[in-house]
Amino acid sequence: MALKKKPVNGMRDILPEEAALRDHVTAVIKETYRSHGFTPIETPLLEEIGNLSNDQGGENEKLIFKVLKRGEKLDLTGDVREEDIVDYGMRYDLTVPLSRFYSNNENDLQKPFKALQMGPVFRADRPQKGRYRQFTQCDIDIIGEKSYLAECELITATTKALSRLSFSDFRIVINDRRLLSSMADYAGFPKERQGKLFIILDKLDKIGLEGVRDELKESGFDETSIEKYISLFEALDGKNDIQESLSILKERMGDFFPEDAASDLTNIGSIVMSDDVREADFSLVFDPTLVRGMGYYTGPVFEIRIAELDISCGGGGRYDNMVGLFAGHDTPACGFSIGFERIILLLKEKGYEIPGSGKKTAILLDKGLSADEIKKAYGEARALRSEGNTVLIERMQKNKKFQKEMLEKEGYSEVIEKWQNQ
Amino acid sequence: MALKKKPVNGMRDILPEEAALRDHVTAVIKETYRSHGFTPIETPLLEEIGNLSNDQGGENEKLIFKVLKRGEKLDLTGDVREEDIVDYGMRYDLTVPLSRFYSNNENDLQKPFKALQMGPVFRADRPQKGRYRQFTQCDIDIIGEKSYLAECELITATTKALSRLSFSDFRIVINDRRLLSSMADYAGFPKERQGKLFIILDKLDKIGLEGVRDELKESGFDETSIEKYISLFEALDGKNDIQESLSILKERMGDFFPEDAASDLTNIGSIVMSDDVREADFSLVFDPTLVRGMGYYTGPVFEIRIAELDISCGGGGRYDNMVGLFAGHDTPACGFSIGFERIILLLKEKGYEIPGSGKKTAILLDKGLSADEIKKAYGEARALRSEGNTVLIERMQKNKKFQKEMLEKEGYSEVIEKWQNQ
Repeated sequence: MALKKKPVNGMRDILPEEAALRDHVTAVIKETYRSHGFTPIETPLLEEIGNLSNDQGGENEKLIFKVLKRGEKLDLTGDVREEDIVDYGMRYDLTVPLSRFYSNNENDLQKPFKALQMGPVFRADRPQKGRYRQFTQCDIDIIGEKSYLAECELITATTKALSRLSFSDFRIVINDRRLLSSMADYAGFPKERQGKLFIILDKLDKIGLEGVRDELKESGFDETSIEKYISLFEALDGKNDIQESLSILKERMGDFFPEDAASDLTNIGSIVMSDDVREADFSLVFDPTLVRGMGYYTGPVFEIRIAELDISCGGGGRYDNMVGLFAGHDTPACGFSIGFERIILLLKEKGYEIPGSGKKTAILLDKGLSADEIKKAYGEARALRSEGNTVLIERMQKNKKFQKEMLEKEGYSEVIEKWQNQ
Repeated sequence: MALKKKPVNGMRDILPEEAALRDHVTAVIKETYRSHGFTPIETPLLEEIGNLSNDQGGENEKLIFKVLKRGEKLDLTGDVREEDIVDYGMRYDLTVPLSRFYSNNENDLQKPFKALQMGPVFRADRPQKGRYRQFTQCDIDIIGEKSYLAECELITATTKALSRLSFSDFRIVINDRRLLSSMADYAGFPKERQGKLFIILDKLDKIGLEGVRDELKESGFDETSIEKYISLFEALDGKNDIQESLSILKERMGDFFPEDAASDLTNIGSIVMSDDVREADFSLVFDPTLVRGMGYYTGPVFEIRIAELDISCGGGGRYDNMVGLFAGHDTPACGFSIGFERIILLLKEKGYEIPGSGKKTAILLDKGLSADEIKKAYGEARALRSEGNTVLIERMQKNKKFQKEMLEKEGYSEVIEKWQNQ
C-alpha cells in the first residue's frame, strides 16, 4: 500500500514556528497558574467508552473516536454490534477525565484540589476551516470549594495569564445557571422543557430576540410564558452592569428571584474587578442570555471574549454534580478552560513575538574540514551557547547564498563560516 | 452503566508531584535542544492505519490501538474483517509520523531539518510493572544530513540535556549497522538470514556468547560461519576502545572490513569526547553486539546507559531509507530518542528536586470574611506573587491543624490566616 503524506482527515501538522509559539504560550499559562497554587496533572488520552458516554457530555458524545478491542476480546464472527467490538474511546474533553481522576485519587490530593491540565482532545466533527479533530485544551479546575472563592480564583488567574500573553481589553461575560432556571420558572416553563429552552436562547447572538421568540413558538412553548420570558430580556436590554441588572430582575421576578445566585454574582464581580486584585485590563459583563452548552453546569458560568473577535476564547462554570457521578458523594467543582487554539490563532494573526529568545548564530562547516577543525567549531558553539545564544552547526551547502537566506529567515542574525586550514 | 474510577488497563493517572517533574524535565530538554538549533514540531496522535503498518515498525505494528470508522463509512452488516472497519491507528512511535510530516511539509522546512518532537505514543502491550500502554517519547532527528555531523550533534545535545538533569557518569554505547552486516558477511551468513541473526545477537547481554552460539545452532545456521562469527567477538572481548577494536577487526576481516563505518565511528568518537566539545561527564563505549531493535537503521546506532541501571535510557541511529518511503526520494536521516519515562523514574528514585521553585505561601480565609476583606487578601497575594512567590488562597477549614499539615507537605512554608474584622 502506498504511504500517505497528508495527516488524517481533519488533523494537522504543526510547523516549527507555530510549535515554538505553542510551547511558549503553554509555558506562560502553566507558570501563571502554578503561581496561583494550581498543580499540574496528566490523564490518559483513552477512557472507558462507558465513562465517555454518560450523558454529561452533550453533543460531544456523538463525536467520539472509538478504539477497537484487541486480541481474544475482539470477536468479529456473526452479526456484530458496535458496542460489542469497542472498549475505549479517545477523550473529547478534559472534564470527564478530571472527574474520574479525582475520584480515583481523592485520598492523595489536597482539599480543595486545584488542578491544571493541558493536552489534546479529539472530536470526530465535520472538518472545517479553523476547526480540527484534534485540538489542545487547557483547563483549570477547583474541586471541593463550594463558595464563590473558586470562581474568583479561576477568573483572576486566567485573566492574568491572558494579560501576560499581551491581551488587553477583553471581556469576561458572566451569568448563573440558577438565574437562568429561575427566569424560566418565573415565566412558567416546565422544568423538563428548560433544556430545550436554553438551547434556543443560546442562539440569541445569531438570531436576535425576535428569532428566539419565533423558535420558541415553533417548538410549541406556551405563548404566555414566551411573552413573560421575552419581556425580562427586553427590560434588561443594553444593561451590562451586574448590580443594575439584578435590581431590575429582582423587582420583576419577586419570589422567583434567586438570592443565592445574585449574591454570588455580586461578590465575584466586586472582587475580581477590584483595583487591588485585578492584574489585567478587562471588563466583567453580565449577560442573562449566556448559557454555555454543556448540560452539567449548576451555578455561575462565564466566557472570555476578546475584543478583536468577540467570539468565545474560553469559558467555564460551576458543575457541582459531575464529579459526584464518579466519586459517589457530593463534590462541588468549578472550572475554566482557555480556548488554546483560538489564542494561538489570535497571536499568530497579530504577529506576536516570543519575548527574550536570545541571539541566533549559525556556524557553517566546509566539507573539507578535518575532525580536529570540526572540534574547534563545536568548542566555539559551546562558548556561544553558554552566553545564552542558540547555535546551529551545519554543513556549508553548494548554494551558500540560498542557505544563508534561509537561515536569516529563521532568525539567524549571525553566520560564521569555517574553512579548511583557516 | 456504572462509571469506572480506574484509568483504562495499562494506562495511568499522573499526580501533581510527578506531573510537575515531567513539566520541568520537558522544559530542560526542549530548551537544551532549542539552543542547539533544533525546532519543535507537532504531529497528530492518529495516523492512517496503512502508514503505521508499513513493515518498518517491527513488533510495534502488532501493538496498534486501532480506531473504528465512523458514520456511513462503517459497515457492520454481514461478515466483517478488521481491515474493513478501521481507518486510523494511534501512533506507536514518533519516527513514522516524523517521516510523514517531513515528506508532507518538505518545501516549508529548513534543510537539513533539525526536528524536536515530544509527545505520547501508544502500544497495546501486555501491561507490566513500569511499562505502560501510553508513554511519552522525546525525539530529536536531523533529516537531510548524510555525514557524521548529524550523529555528533545528536550525541552532543543529548548528553548535555542529561547533564543538565543532574546525570553524570553515564555511557553512550555505539555501533554501526554496516559493521554488523560486514561481520556477518565475513562469517559467511547469507543476507536474507541476517535479520534473524541480529535478533539472536541482541540477546547477548542476557544469554552470553555461549547462549548466542547455542541459539544460532538451534536456528540452523551454518556451524563454520557460527564459529568464525563468534571468534570475532571473542577477539574483541573486554575491549571498549573504538580504535583498538576497529584495528583488531580490520586485521581479521580483511576486505570485508567496512572502511566507511570505521571512519564514521572514529570521527564521531573523537569529536564528541573532545574536552573542547563535551559538556557532560560520560564515556563513549564501542559495543559490536549493539543491534537496536528496529529494522530501519542503516548506519551508526547508539544507546544511553545510565550507571545506576545499566539498562537503556534511550538511543537512536541513522535510518537513511525510512523518510524516502514517504518522500519518494533519497533522504538521509538520523535520530536520537531520550527514554523519557525511564529518566523520570530515575529522577524520582534519587529524590531529584526541581531547582528554583521559589517560596510558597498559603493564605487561609475565615468563612466570615466580607467581600472587602477578601479583596484585601487577594491584593496581598498579588504583591507576593509579583516577587516570584507561589500564593495559594483557600478557605480556612474546620480542622485547621490538618489543613496546615497538608499544606506544609505540599511545600507551603508560610501560612497566613485572615480573620473577620482583623
